[in-house]
Amino acid sequence: MMAEQPLPDLEGSVCPVPLKHVEQVVMGHGSGGNMTHELVKRAFLGPFDNPALRLGNDAAIVDPENGAQLAISTDSHVVWPLFFPGGDIGRLAVCGTVNDIAMMGAEPRYLTAGFILEEGLEISLLEKVIRSMQLAAEEAGVHIVAGDTKVVQRGKADGMYINTSGVGLIEAGVHIGGQHALPGDKIILSGPIGDHGIAVLAARGELGFDTTLVSDVAPLNRLVRAILQASPNIHAMRDPTRGGLATTLNEIARQSNANITIYENTIPVRPAVSAACEMLGFDPLYVANEGKLVVFVAAPDAERVLAVMRASEYGSLAEIIGEVTSSPSSRVLMRTALGSTRVVDTLTGEMLPRIC
Amino acid sequence: MMAEQPLPDLEGSVCPVPLKHVEQVVMGHGSGGNMTHELVKRAFLGPFDNPALRLGNDAAIVDPENGAQLAISTDSHVVWPLFFPGGDIGRLAVCGTVNDIAMMGAEPRYLTAGFILEEGLEISLLEKVIRSMQLAAEEAGVHIVAGDTKVVQRGKADGMYINTSGVGLIEAGVHIGGQHALPGDKIILSGPIGDHGIAVLAARGELGFDTTLVSDVAPLNRLVRAILQASPNIHAMRDPTRGGLATTLNEIARQSNANITIYENTIPVRPAVSAACEMLGFDPLYVANEGKLVVFVAAPDAERVLAVMRASEYGSLAEIIGEVTSSPSSRVLMRTALGSTRVVDTLTGEMLPRIC
Repeated sequence: MMAEQPLPDLEGSVCPVPLKHVEQVVMGHGSGGNMTHELVKRAFLGPFDNPALRLGNDAAIVDPENGAQLAISTDSHVVWPLFFPGGDIGRLAVCGTVNDIAMMGAEPRYLTAGFILEEGLEISLLEKVIRSMQLAAEEAGVHIVAGDTKVVQRGKADGMYINTSGVGLIEAGVHIGGQHALPGDKIILSGPIGDHGIAVLAARGELGFDTTLVSDVAPLNRLVRAILQASPNIHAMRDPTRGGLATTLNEIARQSNANITIYENTIPVRPAVSAACEMLGFDPLYVANEGKLVVFVAAPDAERVLAVMRASEYGSLAEIIGEVTSSPSSRVLMRTALGSTRVVDTLTGEMLPRIC
Repeated sequence: MMAEQPLPDLEGSVCPVPLKHVEQVVMGHGSGGNMTHELVKRAFLGPFDNPALRLGNDAAIVDPENGAQLAISTDSHVVWPLFFPGGDIGRLAVCGTVNDIAMMGAEPRYLTAGFILEEGLEISLLEKVIRSMQLAAEEAGVHIVAGDTKVVQRGKADGMYINTSGVGLIEAGVHIGGQHALPGDKIILSGPIGDHGIAVLAARGELGFDTTLVSDVAPLNRLVRAILQASPNIHAMRDPTRGGLATTLNEIARQSNANITIYENTIPVRPAVSAACEMLGFDPLYVANEGKLVVFVAAPDAERVLAVMRASEYGSLAEIIGEVTSSPSSRVLMRTALGSTRVVDTLTGEMLPRIC
């Protein structure tokens, strides 16, 4: 083991120390942004290397050679506080994994739930979380088929952590993934960004003002089904969770080896989110969502898909926000409201810890 | 939420307060014994009710109606310390889920890995754990196809917790489960019990003497494959982890609605485990194993299966330890070395916290 060293202060840092010089885990490693990617690349991808993992999608697609194609995904949830406006760790845990599977064009079917409980947790609170998981699972039409419960001593967890893993089925002919975005594709965003992150901040009392904002946490598999029925030319989908829309678009630009251009004035942001971000110095492009998705679709089908999304409960405020352009530089560019163009980078460091 | 109340002292208690009077999570809820069962029954089984979960096996068997039958399982690992003689949390996490799937007669194929890391964890230590997971996965022949990393603040985890979930494939015609044990079945145990629990205690410095004992943590899927090839009459299998052999046998007795009789002098226990248990006041029947299994097999095939197990790396010390008898009382009885018979109950309370 390495000697204890003082940690570099990474909070809010624009240019953190490269990971190879970091000897200990810092909060930024859980951000979903650059530092998470670096940790995953350094620690996980080498040893665990396999084609499914290498693709870096929200869920792995495997073909067990018996006719079924499966999408498999996992997510541990450490959100704090456990309850927040519009949701709780239980709804989040179900929706998070349902959505990761749905983003591959798969139909989520089976979930597992692994609980790590802190000694002293109120059982009534656990029951409330479980009821919320049940409702979310019913809404999504998935079954929780396996579970596990561990207990750790007081002070060794923060109430509870929940892992959900899931298995979905993919119909023959569906090939959706972050690596399949094509130049010319239109990018549709299913609604306003940043609601989840700001709602959780509000629950922590960190906003300094009251807001009626609620988290957008929702299962998106029915919306995805409607999208797939509307067009056979869906190339990529992803839900912009940790790291926000900016990080998600950068991931897809890298995976597909193409540039992405988005238009600032087309990106929906609620006034409450704008106000909170302005006050706190955040950029909504980096704030987490838990019930939104971006769709990359061949241009001729974009309006039809947009119409279908707008007719859906969780896509009523959808907008076309940009397109894919041919360029090997794999960058995300934004035309600002003022007419200039700026590079939109992946999240660096940690903005909002334990948001999911 | 309910009012704060002083917790009843459950440690070592033979007859803990029934769960309906317990308002908070206590360590015993993670024991794998009676209290875990009560919590699962009270909090989880109602809301999440579905046929796969209701069976209470190590893994759920689902049939997604496309020809493939899948076994799905999940396990969160909170073992402390992270490294112990013979293994570490990484090897444990891979083997735990591999074994749960194998116990259903399924071939484990795909694992997911969800990490909850504590801020300040040495990255070199994480890398060591991951290499260990990789080696265990290679040994078991499974791929880790999806992963997730979360970070919590210092003091909100204990180094790291790892969830592994897994998917296995079941060949047509294999019907194995804790509910299928039949009167007349012989029960084979794959080797000495208690190694894992005592090795972890040794790592904690709680033994008070030195021991060369190592944990038995191992992937058992190849042993299971050999067992299934040796006999088409395997009815149930299970790995006696948390709660030990006694708890596992009680689970199967309950699930199959039959009595189980075991013979004390046939149950292998290493001298180091006996000595430690005697000193600490533990019963090896309740100490956790991570590389053992019990097989319930039709009597005519028992010797053949035993021979195959003994020829296998992880079954070389296998013994026939008992049989299933027809009785609706669903009890486990033990003929002691002295010739008397006693009831062997499920683990009550918590003996060794955070053993897996």
